Amino acid sequence: MRSELVPGTVVLVGGGPGDPDLLTVAAARALAQADVVLFDHLAPDPAPLVRADAQLIGVGKRPRSVDAVRQDDINALLIEHARRGARVVRLKGGDPYVFGRGGEEWTACAAAGVPVEVIPGVTSATSVPAAAGIPVTHRTLSQGFTVVSGHVPPGDPGSSVDWAALAASGTTLVVLMGVKYLPQISAALVGGGLDAATPAAVVSHGFAADAVTLRGTLATIADAAATHGIRPPSIVVIGDVAALDLT
Amino acid sequence: MRSELVPGTVVLVGGGPGDPDLLTVAAARALAQADVVLFDHLAPDPAPLVRADAQLIGVGKRPRSVDAVRQDDINALLIEHARRGARVVRLKGGDPYVFGRGGEEWTACAAAGVPVEVIPGVTSATSVPAAAGIPVTHRTLSQGFTVVSGHVPPGDPGSSVDWAALAASGTTLVVLMGVKYLPQISAALVGGGLDAATPAAVVSHGFAADAVTLRGTLATIADAAATHGIRPPSIVVIGDVAALDLT
Repeated sequence: MRSELVPGTVVLVGGGPGDPDLLTVAAARALAQADVVLFDHLAPDPAPLVRADAQLIGVGKRPRSVDAVRQDDINALLIEHARRGARVVRLKGGDPYVFGRGGEEWTACAAAGVPVEVIPGVTSATSVPAAAGIPVTHRTLSQGFTVVSGHVPPGDPGSSVDWAALAASGTTLVVLMGVKYLPQISAALVGGGLDAATPAAVVSHGFAADAVTLRGTLATIADAAATHGIRPPSIVVIGDVAALDLT
Repeated sequence: MRSELVPGTVVLVGGGPGDPDLLTVAAARALAQADVVLFDHLAPDPAPLVRADAQLIGVGKRPRSVDAVRQDDINALLIEHARRGARVVRLKGGDPYVFGRGGEEWTACAAAGVPVEVIPGVTSATSVPAAAGIPVTHRTLSQGFTVVSGHVPPGDPGSSVDWAALAASGTTLVVLMGVKYLPQISAALVGGGLDAATPAAVVSHGFAADAVTLRGTLATIADAAATHGIRPPSIVVIGDVAALDLT
């Protein structure tokens, strides 16, 4: 990682799962040097981490948020601030390339001739289960894991995920943005041959003080989430490891 | 994350993909406080990050290494040092729960009555592709990714991964420890119906000065890796995103 931000450049920074201690050393250093920070809803609060004269711009990206800044507008802001010579940090929750649309921002900056770099982050897909005592891989239980977005339901024309294939994959399934369509996702996995008794867990607000973990099975987890009023952001883990509780 | 290590406890620390700047703030702080550090081959070198009087113990875990310390012996060392009152850090490459056997170490410590915690890390599975310009997810190209170990070949009695199902999953495939059996893995995926023209890449020594990225297709990548003499540690990425080059 470069140790000094360069004026006129953009750095896409993975902010990790929300706890500022899970920022990387490189991310913390970039924030401390930034002139402008565009931050997402799920990123750690940048205010305590930046210079007093740094400009903070919340772009509020969250699922289905009505107040979210459009992606095109975010891209335009990154380019505009870089072109006036600012050191621009784009702070995202988790990792920029795990459903972070970092690739689109990278491409927009590069197309505009703005130098852009990436600082990887701790993804919520593995760290939020870990915080709930669930290792996504575990010898004898799982030789892999699959991370998918559940923001469109199985069978939707907008979905490119084959849930029946995932049911047969032998990997732990980690579903981000999967609470709304959890009944459909569970049904698709059972329809694909995954045992309805497979352990499942929902972890809501992973690193926050109000974190909640619910455990059950593929047959019960959607009802449990509904009964407990589980809301985004939440992560669903399906597989034998979801029965572990290393806390 | 706890801000002070407690004597007599073990902390399983994700060290990230090798660049010390990709340690988390929590990981760097734990290393600075540790009395004893047991570290893996693929973790960042802890020497510049610890107190001068800290004890460093290389446990040399790497695939098929003849000099590796056995897992049972690592567990016993963690427990022994904690019981004599040391602040013990177990430093791993990547994330402790992504093929890190962290769950086994957690369980062994807990069974021995030794308090144990986990600090998640930046996994190589997403960050090494990122360093090579490949986002594991990208809008219009991939709505998910699967991380599997390739240390046993497809069809081996020791493998619980269904490669034909992964071929149909619609997710980016990220194979760790997959260079040795890459011909068999590629064949299993093509046999499962994945187009032989699917983009594929191998990234070797991700964050080191001698990093190498090879690009090709599912049909060509195994031969390319053999021709270039690619050695572990390497990561294979298979899917449309492997054709991107955001560098």
